[in-house]
Amino acid sequence: MSDKSFFIPRLTVIGVGLIGGSLAAALKSKQAVGEVVGVGRNLENLQTALDRGLIDRHDQDPARAVRGADLVLLATPVCSTGEVLARIRDHLPGQAILTDVGSIKQQVINAAKTEYGFMPGRFVPAHPIAGAEKSGAAAADAGLFMKHKVVLTPEPETDREALTLVRRMWQLTGAEVTELPAQSHDEIFAATSHLPHMLAYALVSYLLHADNGRGFFEYAAGGFADFTRIASSDPTMWRDVGLCNRDPLVDAISGFEQILGKLKSMIKQGDAAGLYTMFEEAKSHRDDWLEKRQP
Amino acid sequence: MSDKSFFIPRLTVIGVGLIGGSLAAALKSKQAVGEVVGVGRNLENLQTALDRGLIDRHDQDPARAVRGADLVLLATPVCSTGEVLARIRDHLPGQAILTDVGSIKQQVINAAKTEYGFMPGRFVPAHPIAGAEKSGAAAADAGLFMKHKVVLTPEPETDREALTLVRRMWQLTGAEVTELPAQSHDEIFAATSHLPHMLAYALVSYLLHADNGRGFFEYAAGGFADFTRIASSDPTMWRDVGLCNRDPLVDAISGFEQILGKLKSMIKQGDAAGLYTMFEEAKSHRDDWLEKRQP
Repeated sequence: MSDKSFFIPRLTVIGVGLIGGSLAAALKSKQAVGEVVGVGRNLENLQTALDRGLIDRHDQDPARAVRGADLVLLATPVCSTGEVLARIRDHLPGQAILTDVGSIKQQVINAAKTEYGFMPGRFVPAHPIAGAEKSGAAAADAGLFMKHKVVLTPEPETDREALTLVRRMWQLTGAEVTELPAQSHDEIFAATSHLPHMLAYALVSYLLHADNGRGFFEYAAGGFADFTRIASSDPTMWRDVGLCNRDPLVDAISGFEQILGKLKSMIKQGDAAGLYTMFEEAKSHRDDWLEKRQP
Repeated sequence: MSDKSFFIPRLTVIGVGLIGGSLAAALKSKQAVGEVVGVGRNLENLQTALDRGLIDRHDQDPARAVRGADLVLLATPVCSTGEVLARIRDHLPGQAILTDVGSIKQQVINAAKTEYGFMPGRFVPAHPIAGAEKSGAAAADAGLFMKHKVVLTPEPETDREALTLVRRMWQLTGAEVTELPAQSHDEIFAATSHLPHMLAYALVSYLLHADNGRGFFEYAAGGFADFTRIASSDPTMWRDVGLCNRDPLVDAISGFEQILGKLKSMIKQGDAAGLYTMFEEAKSHRDDWLEKRQP
C-alpha cells in the first residue's frame, strides 16, 4: 500500500522484541514514521535495535520515553500491561494513541480500565498473529506481518479516529486487519492456540512421568516432533497465558476433555464406525483448512 | 553393510504398499533377494510395483503366492494379520520364515497363536518405525528405513535362527534393529505415537464442535498446522490402531487425562510456579530429545 498521507512523527515502542522491533522495521521501510524511541530493560537488546536501525534512540524510563509521542506501542509480555500503563499514564500526551500487541485482549482491556478508571478512548487493543521461535530485536523483520492477520478488539468507548489510524498502520505492514469483540477473540485463541500449547506441554509431561526409565523418548518419531514443537515455546510466556486467559482456557480444556472422553469410550467399546467417523471428519476438515490456507 | 552371505532366494510380500514395497526395493538394491512375489487386492498397485521393479511377478491369491517362499513378509493393515494367516497357514513351506511390519505387536502375536494354536517358532514379529503421509507401491523407496528403528518383539518360542535372519535383513536396509517385549512395545507406542494421533484428531474434532460458525479455523496459525499434521493421517489405519491396541491406548489416554486435569487445576488456581515448572520441564526435555535426535 502506498499511502503518503500516513505518517507518525514520533513512535515510542515499549518492548523492542520480535513484534515491537518488526513493526518499527516495517514502518521505517515504508517511510511511515519519523523518530522511533525504544524502551526496554535489556540494554544489549536496545543497542542491537539501534545498530539495526529499528529505533533512533532508546530510553530505559518509559515515563520519559512517551513524552512527545504521537503513538505508543505496548509490546511487553501480555500480563504486564497494567504495570506499564501505571508508569506511563501521567506522562502520555493527551492526543497520543496507545495500542498494544497482546495475545489476550480482555485482560489488557481490564488492566486499562483499572488503571484509568474507564476505558481510554485512544487506546486501541490489537493482536498481530505472528510470532516465531525466535525472539528479540535481533530477529525483527520488516516482512513479519505480511499476509498475517491482525485482530483489533475495540470497545464501545474506542475513538474512531484512533481505531482508523491503528488499522492503517497495520495495513501498511502488509497485514490483513480484522475486528472481533475481545471476549470472542479470547475464546477463539484459547481454543485454536492456547489449548494446543497446553496439550503439547501436557503430552511431554505425561511421557516424562509414564516413561519411568523405559526409554519412551528413544522411540518417539516424526509425528511426535511436529506435535510437540510448540512445547519448545517460552515457558514464561505460556505461564502468563495460563494466568491471564484463565476462564476461556479452562473452558477450552473442559470442552476438549469431553471429546477425548468420548474417544476413549469408543476405543473401550470397540466402536469402529464411531472412531472412523471422528477421524475422517477431523482429517477432511483439517485438509480443507490447509488447502484454503495455502492457495 | 556388505554381507554376501545373506540371500533370500524367494521373498513373498503380502501387501506391496509403502513398507512392503520399500523393503523389497532395499533388498533388491543390495542383491540380497532372488525372486520377489507381490500379493495384493489392487491390480493397478501391483502393476506399479512390477513396473518399478519392486517385484518380479504378482499373484492375487496369497495361498498360491507363498508356495516355495523362503521368507514371507506380512505388510497388510495391522488388524488383518489373523485373516491373512488363515489363508496362508496350510500352504506355507515348513522352513519358511514369516515376519510382519505391524505397528502393534501383542495383537499380531495373539492372532498367530489363535490361528496356529501356539506361537509359531518361525514367525518373527517386527515393527519398522518408518512411514510417511504417502502410501502405495508408487511411494516405495529403497532408502526409507535408513537410520530408522526396527523393533523386533520375539516370544520365548521364537526360533533363534529365524530371529537372526530377520534382524540381518533389516540391518541390510540401513535400519537400527532393537528388541522389546511385545507388551512394552505396545505401551511405548501407545504413549509416543498413538496417543498424539488421538489428541490431534480430538483437537480438530473439538474445534469443529466449539466453532459453531464463529470462524475458529480462520484464526488457526502455524502452531496449529504442525500440531494437527498427524490428524491428516489415514482414518482407517488409525481406527484399526484404536481397535487393535485398545488396552495400552486406553491406559495412555487415562494417564494423559490426569496430567491435563492437573494442568487445568493449576490454571484455575493461578498457580504460576506450578505452571512454569511443568512448561519448563517439558520444554527442556523436548529440546534435549530433539538435539540428540538430530546430531
